[in-house]
Amino acid sequence: MDIYVALVHHPVRNRNGDVVTTAVTNLDIHDLARASRTYDVRGMYIVTPLEQQCSLVSRIIEHWQEGEGTAYNPIRGEAFTRVHVSASAEATSQDIEAKTGRRPLWVATGANLDRETIPYDALRDRIAKEDGPLLLLFGTGWGLTDEFIQCCDQWLPGVRAVAGRDGYNHLSVRSAVSIILDRLLGDR
Amino acid sequence: MDIYVALVHHPVRNRNGDVVTTAVTNLDIHDLARASRTYDVRGMYIVTPLEQQCSLVSRIIEHWQEGEGTAYNPIRGEAFTRVHVSASAEATSQDIEAKTGRRPLWVATGANLDRETIPYDALRDRIAKEDGPLLLLFGTGWGLTDEFIQCCDQWLPGVRAVAGRDGYNHLSVRSAVSIILDRLLGDR
Repeated sequence: MDIYVALVHHPVRNRNGDVVTTAVTNLDIHDLARASRTYDVRGMYIVTPLEQQCSLVSRIIEHWQEGEGTAYNPIRGEAFTRVHVSASAEATSQDIEAKTGRRPLWVATGANLDRETIPYDALRDRIAKEDGPLLLLFGTGWGLTDEFIQCCDQWLPGVRAVAGRDGYNHLSVRSAVSIILDRLLGDR
Repeated sequence: MDIYVALVHHPVRNRNGDVVTTAVTNLDIHDLARASRTYDVRGMYIVTPLEQQCSLVSRIIEHWQEGEGTAYNPIRGEAFTRVHVSASAEATSQDIEAKTGRRPLWVATGANLDRETIPYDALRDRIAKEDGPLLLLFGTGWGLTDEFIQCCDQWLPGVRAVAGRDGYNHLSVRSAVSIILDRLLGDR
């Protein structure tokens, strides 16, 4: 399958559980562009309904694709050719459908998804064997809202350490995207 | 084995291959502290020989462990209890030896280690079965110097996508640390 990633800034929860729109973080875009290049993600979408944030992201993309950035670091420029900005997850999905002719499978990720999840190895096998687009959705802030998560087709379990280590998921979204891409697409 | 991580700012290469000392990045400390908490890393060392950078890191740690940060986000504060600052990899190693009674196994990481490497699964098995400390060393900038890498005991291969995807390693050090901790310690 062809993999697409959406970094969702709305609708997500804040630390009090309120539904909010988070601000776009420059370093998220860089780290996700680089991870997307490494794992051959076909498109990485920064999802925000705020017009000012959209134009900020567009300026960053342009800087690295066409501006001074590409002269400074052409590999980074190439990674940025995969980065797009989009007003919503639905608009992202429609853009992928326009490109591929198929609506992508929506796969939600989160530290604590309270529903039946698909194991990483099962999704990894499906990606290797099947065709069609798959959209991995990551929430910023304190995560995607329950209403949003319900609209997805599949759910991945939260990333955890092996049993016997006392850790729990306290990862940044940059770390989570990287780890999940590696679990699904890494060379092991 | 008990895992320790060192984020090395010297000796590393810059884009021209010169040996330099890179600047500490605030977000590196946050992301590595959070990943260390998730994977139960016993100590995460920010390695820099520059005194001003040392005191900057100490102030950041203090803010999250004891200052306003801990009231704002106690989980982050707890993650920061694992973060230390150190003047060199050797000083880091000695600190671990003082705590554990054994010199740690030095394991180097890098996008392009030009030597015999240990597969991730083999090191994962060794970590699960053996005792004693293990120090994972990550270079900032354009990576650890060859001279430094030669002094290590083991070497991990660069992270790659599965065959058939055209990616190559263009990961940030934040992503690389997260992925490698997951490969060695994740619940799969």
